[in-house]
Formats: sequence, structure tokens, C-alpha cells
Amino acid sequence: MKEKGYVQVYTGNGKGKTTAAIGLAIRALGAGFKVLFTQFVKGLPYSEHNVLSRFENLTIKQFGRPEFIHSKPSLEDIQAAKDGYNFVLDVFNNNSASYDVVILDEANIAVFFGLFTEDELLELIKKKPQNTELVITGRFATQKIIDAADLVTEMKETKHYYTQGVIARDGIEK
Amino acid sequence: MKEKGYVQVYTGNGKGKTTAAIGLAIRALGAGFKVLFTQFVKGLPYSEHNVLSRFENLTIKQFGRPEFIHSKPSLEDIQAAKDGYNFVLDVFNNNSASYDVVILDEANIAVFFGLFTEDELLELIKKKPQNTELVITGRFATQKIIDAADLVTEMKETKHYYTQGVIARDGIEK
Repeated sequence: MKEKGYVQVYTGNGKGKTTAAIGLAIRALGAGFKVLFTQFVKGLPYSEHNVLSRFENLTIKQFGRPEFIHSKPSLEDIQAAKDGYNFVLDVFNNNSASYDVVILDEANIAVFFGLFTEDELLELIKKKPQNTELVITGRFATQKIIDAADLVTEMKETKHYYTQGVIARDGIEK
Repeated sequence: MKEKGYVQVYTGNGKGKTTAAIGLAIRALGAGFKVLFTQFVKGLPYSEHNVLSRFENLTIKQFGRPEFIHSKPSLEDIQAAKDGYNFVLDVFNNNSASYDVVILDEANIAVFFGLFTEDELLELIKKKPQNTELVITGRFATQKIIDAADLVTEMKETKHYYTQGVIARDGIEK
């Protein structure tokens, strides 16, 4: 982007964080921007990847593992997240690919589960090239991440049919 | 969809409602679903349309006008919204196109500004085919709409750089 890029955070316990990030990616692609979509923790082949992988200006990198168990991250989970962290840090340090928009999907969750630290995520925010828009999603955004962001939206679950016994459906939730 | 479709509402004053709807559309397309994306009130050619218009399984219909002034909707604004309302009602009544996902972007705002009534929007919810997922966005969702929904997410603005003087940017906000 020619303009200054900002830091956007989507957090909270409601639905719509990752889908908003996908929407932002689509909008940016529509404007001719170059987008890096990184996904932490999640390792599943979500439906949207079928579509997103078609775009030349969009790079998708998954640094999660399908086997990830929330209660007990394994060394492999931690390594996958660290690899992702280093990948993004490298992109920012070299600014070689010149992404206009960089999305760190579920990065807050990665911090929450100790896959990398809050300080490391703050470092990514600090290293972001000036003209790059950085989008961070995931519930449990820490206060320091919120403080470092320019825009914060909390997705608040007001009502949820999962309580009626619906499980995640292909093409809707995943 | 083979499964039962639900009613999702994205409301609140925060960013991410329309972008989440776009993300939902992309995810659904990735699963091979047929999507109808209707947009009320807004009439501008947003960046995402450049991308979304490429998908065969996605129908986009805009029923807003670029000239819409929030404080004083004109007869043309009301007519555009009513046309949209009747279009969707017709789709539901005939179920001819068999959309798996139908998005009514900014429909809550259309009700708020009196372009159509709360009862009319409730009627759309009622007429939704059983296997269609209905997604309604826009701030100011009324209590009755919330009551009629299965899932409600409130996007809450926690922090916003617009207060720093940033105006809507192509490819990011529009």
C-alpha cells in the first residue's frame, strides 16, 4: 500500500474472527493488494482454502497441526508455531515480498497456549513494515497486544446454536 | 445444504460485520455451496466485488444507492431496499435457485432507517427454506431479530484508529 498500514485485532469469544480476516483478504485482493494469510494453531484444510488458494496475489501458510489438542500442546505444535513466527519475522525483516496485508490468524490463541510469547507477538507488530496492514485474530488478545493495536474489535457471543447441539459444519463453520 | 440451515446475525458498532459475511461466502463457495449475497443501503462498488463477481456459484445483488444519506433516506433509497426485500422474498417463496447460503448485508441498518420494517425482515427469516443458512448483518439489530436468530455475534468496537483521523481506505475498509 502507498498509505500507512495499521494494526487490526479481532478478538472475543464470538464467531466471525477468522471469517472477517478472510473477508479482509478478499477485499484487499480486489484492490490489487498482495496478501499473506498465515494461520496458527489450526491445521485443518478448511473449505475456504479451496477458494483462497486460487489467488495469485495471496500466499497462505499454515503453521498449525490438525492434531493440536488445546489442553496440552506438544513439542511439534510449538515447533510449528515457532516456524510460523520466524517465517513472518523474516518477511518483515527483509520486506522482500512487500505484502500489503499480513494476517496472523489465531495468533492470540498461539500466545494463550504458550506456542510463542506475548513479547514475540509484540516484536512482530514492531517489525511490521510501515505500509503493511497487520491483522491479528484469536480470542484472548492480551492487554499489551490491544494497547499496541490501532483498531480492536471484540466479537462477543450473544447467542449460539451450538448450545442446541450443532457441531461445526463444512462450508459454514469450517 | 443437506443439513438444516440456521439464522446468523452479526451486529454491533465494531468493524468486521460485512467482512465476516464475505468470509462466510468464500468458505461456503469453497465447500461447493451456492451463495446469494445481497447488500442493502450500501451502493458503492467496494473492492471485494472485483473478486466476488468472478465466482459462478455466487450471485451478488446490490439494493443500495451510492447517494444514500443516513439522516434522510429518499424515496429512491426506500424503493431500492423494497426491491431487494421483494427479490429475496421471491427467492425464498419459490426456492427456485436453491441457495445454500443467503446473506442480507446491512439489512439491520435498512430496518433502522425505515427502508423496510422489522416485521418484513422477520417475515424473511420465517420464509427461509429449511436448508438455507441465512446471514443478516448490520448494527442496530432489533431485539426481535436477535430473538429469531440462532447465532448472534456482537462486533464491539474497543479501539478505532478512525479517531486518529484515518478515513476509509480502498482495499481495507471498502
